[in-house]
Amino acid sequence: MLQIWALPGLPEIGAGDDLVALIGAAASDQLRDGDILVVTSKIVSKAEGRFVLADDREDAITAETVRLVASRTAPSGHTTRIVENRLGIVSAAAGVDASNTPEGTVLLLPVDPDASARRLAAGLRAALGVEVGVLVSDTLGRAWREGQTDHAIGAGGVQVFEDLRGGVDAEGRPLVVTQPCVADELCGAADLVKGKATRLPVAVVRGRADLVGALDLPGARSIVRPPERDFFRLGADEAYADGYAAGAASVIS
Amino acid sequence: MLQIWALPGLPEIGAGDDLVALIGAAASDQLRDGDILVVTSKIVSKAEGRFVLADDREDAITAETVRLVASRTAPSGHTTRIVENRLGIVSAAAGVDASNTPEGTVLLLPVDPDASARRLAAGLRAALGVEVGVLVSDTLGRAWREGQTDHAIGAGGVQVFEDLRGGVDAEGRPLVVTQPCVADELCGAADLVKGKATRLPVAVVRGRADLVGALDLPGARSIVRPPERDFFRLGADEAYADGYAAGAASVIS
Repeated sequence: MLQIWALPGLPEIGAGDDLVALIGAAASDQLRDGDILVVTSKIVSKAEGRFVLADDREDAITAETVRLVASRTAPSGHTTRIVENRLGIVSAAAGVDASNTPEGTVLLLPVDPDASARRLAAGLRAALGVEVGVLVSDTLGRAWREGQTDHAIGAGGVQVFEDLRGGVDAEGRPLVVTQPCVADELCGAADLVKGKATRLPVAVVRGRADLVGALDLPGARSIVRPPERDFFRLGADEAYADGYAAGAASVIS
Repeated sequence: MLQIWALPGLPEIGAGDDLVALIGAAASDQLRDGDILVVTSKIVSKAEGRFVLADDREDAITAETVRLVASRTAPSGHTTRIVENRLGIVSAAAGVDASNTPEGTVLLLPVDPDASARRLAAGLRAALGVEVGVLVSDTLGRAWREGQTDHAIGAGGVQVFEDLRGGVDAEGRPLVVTQPCVADELCGAADLVKGKATRLPVAVVRGRADLVGALDLPGARSIVRPPERDFFRLGADEAYADGYAAGAASVIS
């Protein structure tokens, strides 16, 4: 049985706030060994003071972008960009968040969400005396599916993959290439109790203590597909345009 | 509080089995109004007799493919194909499943997973007298993230999106373009209790009764991004090659 609930009683988070103390107080005696806390990246960013003044959210997205993956301008003039940010995450807004932030500001992602998650896990373990794991979540779109789901961008003391490679199925045959990304599944599950419009930025998942372990387990950075395994480094239109120019040049030269 | 558990006691499913009767018996008195059952597509396919003889899983993938999205051959000679299947789902294997199937056979996806989910929901509502929703799940990879997570490919009597468009955030500002794909989050959450190597193909999610409703709610087909909103209709290499050929031809002509 998996149980998932949101922690009530967290105040609005501001720059410099001690998240270990605040989450520890909100969780009080609710936590046990093996619980996994899923913390919305927004409050980690706020505590880390990642606000920037921005007249224009688009300017902030540009600043956080390390690579343009795809871009399209609608007849209305609105341009949608899919970009890779400095964490390697491909999304529509480079992690720049303009909702629930003070007027005139936008919020960048934590500097190093894996480090943030490990600090939180270490702090909560020390403060509460329970071996918890921490995931930092962000809301992302998907290439071929509408809508968004929450994904893990930071992990501290939690396995991000359940590695079944080398296992066997119920018929005794080898299970191949099966590597469930449990960190993403946990973050999506937590989103189901957190809500978007309410101030419930932390959820507790109980029932997968087997995934909780040492603080030096691989972080969520290990979920990012490396370039050599990424078939979709560019949008179809961008790759076509690059190819067209190269093809034309090859004939001329 | 969200509670998720796997139904024990389901037998191995074969062609022609009555899933409503079998799931109803396994669930017995466990279900309440508003519960959501997440059913692995594998057992729906087995009950529907979707086995095909296949010397070669690759041949079966080719038969289920309506469009090649991307393809790469490794130095080892192994070719990885990303394809769109007849349901519009983009994945590495067109939904063809070769694990936990009788020797010499592979299993295709249900013919119409939304119809399967609606039949199951209608049947269970009638048989047990409780208003449950049903999701049919499949395991899919992601463009830019390693590993797989479970996603919804069929939905009966469950909202697939939680539509927050038109709502406001905690500061009273409009929430824009936020449309959580709760069906995918529910299927991922259910995977956390089902396991891959064990025979626990059905999970129950309790605590989101607000998502359960009429059997004619939009199905999981509505999650598939339509071509005009899909920036990644082709892999980068394929689009580049198409562009290269077109660019060279434009100069010659």
